[in-house]
Amino acid sequence: MLVVQKYGGTSVATTEKIISIAKRILAIRNKGHKVVVVVSAIGHTTDDLLALANNVNSQPSGREISMLLSTGEQVSVALLAMALHELGCPAISFTGMQVGIVTNAAYTNAKILRINTGRIRKELSKGKVVIVAGFQGVNLRNDITTLGRGGSNLTAVGLAAVLKAQACEMNTDVDGVYTADPRIVPGAKKLDRISYEEMLELYSLGVQVLQPRSVQFAQKYNVPIHVRSSFSQKDGTLITKEVKTMEKEVISGVTATKNEAKICIRGVPDRPGIAARIFNDIARKNINVDMIVQNVGEDGLADISFTIIAVDLIRTMETVEKIRRELKAEKVEADSDIAKISVVGVGMRSHSGVAAKMFRTLAQSRVNIEMISTSEIKISCLVRKHLADKAVRAIHRSFKLGKK
Amino acid sequence: MLVVQKYGGTSVATTEKIISIAKRILAIRNKGHKVVVVVSAIGHTTDDLLALANNVNSQPSGREISMLLSTGEQVSVALLAMALHELGCPAISFTGMQVGIVTNAAYTNAKILRINTGRIRKELSKGKVVIVAGFQGVNLRNDITTLGRGGSNLTAVGLAAVLKAQACEMNTDVDGVYTADPRIVPGAKKLDRISYEEMLELYSLGVQVLQPRSVQFAQKYNVPIHVRSSFSQKDGTLITKEVKTMEKEVISGVTATKNEAKICIRGVPDRPGIAARIFNDIARKNINVDMIVQNVGEDGLADISFTIIAVDLIRTMETVEKIRRELKAEKVEADSDIAKISVVGVGMRSHSGVAAKMFRTLAQSRVNIEMISTSEIKISCLVRKHLADKAVRAIHRSFKLGKK
Repeated sequence: MLVVQKYGGTSVATTEKIISIAKRILAIRNKGHKVVVVVSAIGHTTDDLLALANNVNSQPSGREISMLLSTGEQVSVALLAMALHELGCPAISFTGMQVGIVTNAAYTNAKILRINTGRIRKELSKGKVVIVAGFQGVNLRNDITTLGRGGSNLTAVGLAAVLKAQACEMNTDVDGVYTADPRIVPGAKKLDRISYEEMLELYSLGVQVLQPRSVQFAQKYNVPIHVRSSFSQKDGTLITKEVKTMEKEVISGVTATKNEAKICIRGVPDRPGIAARIFNDIARKNINVDMIVQNVGEDGLADISFTIIAVDLIRTMETVEKIRRELKAEKVEADSDIAKISVVGVGMRSHSGVAAKMFRTLAQSRVNIEMISTSEIKISCLVRKHLADKAVRAIHRSFKLGKK
Repeated sequence: MLVVQKYGGTSVATTEKIISIAKRILAIRNKGHKVVVVVSAIGHTTDDLLALANNVNSQPSGREISMLLSTGEQVSVALLAMALHELGCPAISFTGMQVGIVTNAAYTNAKILRINTGRIRKELSKGKVVIVAGFQGVNLRNDITTLGRGGSNLTAVGLAAVLKAQACEMNTDVDGVYTADPRIVPGAKKLDRISYEEMLELYSLGVQVLQPRSVQFAQKYNVPIHVRSSFSQKDGTLITKEVKTMEKEVISGVTATKNEAKICIRGVPDRPGIAARIFNDIARKNINVDMIVQNVGEDGLADISFTIIAVDLIRTMETVEKIRRELKAEKVEADSDIAKISVVGVGMRSHSGVAAKMFRTLAQSRVNIEMISTSEIKISCLVRKHLADKAVRAIHRSFKLGKK
């Protein structure tokens, strides 16, 4: 069996941790598996290097940033290979360039175009553990590129795809994906399995176990991802394509997102094209809008409400106030004392009544719903922020998410 | 004019120093010169990386050590390119692999086989300063190699040779080569020019401005090397092939080497092959012998004296004591209270009487000579250690080395 394993920066933060990771890898190899390991830079290396860059240049070029940052992973792979050698385990390290991870030329946010497997397969066939520097590749001019945030995960998924690995293990500092945040819901349960789609929805709701790019990449090539803890032997959560089983839960998890703010434009003339005008102007400022609700009153004037990330509030208000004056709308209200409660699950596709049950649960808990939005596998309700945790606990209970 | 400049680790020890080096490079480029810069790793980076390696492996493999250490120079080149960009100077950085510095497979002590100049020439023709990571190359399998101690100097000389540069500037923390150590001889003078041969002799005598490998490489390709200070605009010392001029000084410098010890084997039977036997055994222990003197007395027994580096004294004594017993020689004496005073100069070839003048000077200073050895351009005398500085000052004076 061929396994691709990825270890993040916290998993290799010290040489002691590197040695314990090496032992973990050796144990898997000793079971007869072929192992390809992708490693991130040690601990805070990337931030330290960026600080050096900022000392010499206020806006460093992408090419030189990639040249600089890629050294972090190169240090990790060399040290991990040495640690494996010390245990008597044959191992060989490679940079992205040496493996032949070819990307486009978007230096600090490059896309993988292709991966050559020749050298990796050759070394695997000699019985070696192959260690690949994450996060980095090389463009067609042989210049070093980096893959952006979460780039090492992308390297791992890419290698698992081209090598047709049985599994891509993401060894990280969390031990899996939970039905709810265990800090809010004490009975929250670790999920054995979740679909790519659900993982994507959960990410946007703040469950940032794995970046959407990597999940989408894995989905495209149908690579199962096993998210698990670097420091435990227990199974984590398997992210796979949707599997139809009788036992399938209707929903997989419930979340509270507390970093949004609501803006309401009151008394907008209800003419065609007004909403388009407003959201076009906001989009041009690169502000992402999440939920949108529009009500038209009997007076022919509309109220348009929407949510954004709270840090964008001031910029958004400037834009919206300008629009309000031009449209002669009555007033603009901002409110950051809100939270978004969401349930996510592919089971919604085949089960009706999920929304009704969620609304009923909130009503019974005396939590007022201020806005609603839905997607195929998600329902979100906006509530007062101080009621958020209570709401999450109530929903977790009523959907029986904590049961074994 | 095409100039190759090399900056060592102390020259780029902080981001402030990197910025000042960038200004220095820009000034040269603004004079209309094409500039190729070779940079070492920042300050103590290499030692720090080696310490990490030793934490995970007691005897790391050469391949992984090269993988690890080569990141140090990669960080430097990226930062220097950024610093030049900040000054508005077009610049581009390269690893040894990217430039195509192809070496043999002796990972941590690799020899340069060839250097591709295509990419460098292309970027120079666009008006860019080209920055190359020193100390590193790549073998024929595309694995990273490193060139050993002083490897960045070797990279610079190699690039100067293949690019047919007008000069190879070694910017370092000393401002040139002196007629004597200025800490011992206050009137010591910086030499404007010195030959490759003299530089090689001076290195073995402790003037470690530039490693023999780089000097020999430069000599082979006739690359003039300009050793100068990174922190001053003043000219340093030019190392070139021997130039015949009327004004040529007879000797270039005088040195005291204080790290040797003398061993004397007394009462050795004077038979053919005895000396060969002794020095063969010592050589097999990888102990370098410097001066050798043999006297045969009237009793037909010989005294054999030689010098070694003092740190090898105990090992050498063990070997020699064994030989003494086998040969039934009388006794072995060790003495580390010695110093070697040497004068070096290509002028000796055409001027007679240098040795006589040196011996006379030492006699007048009441410094007893215990051993003598000579080469074509060097004369060395062994003296008591506490008389060494006095001897150097006397010789510096009598050969008028301090005069302008």
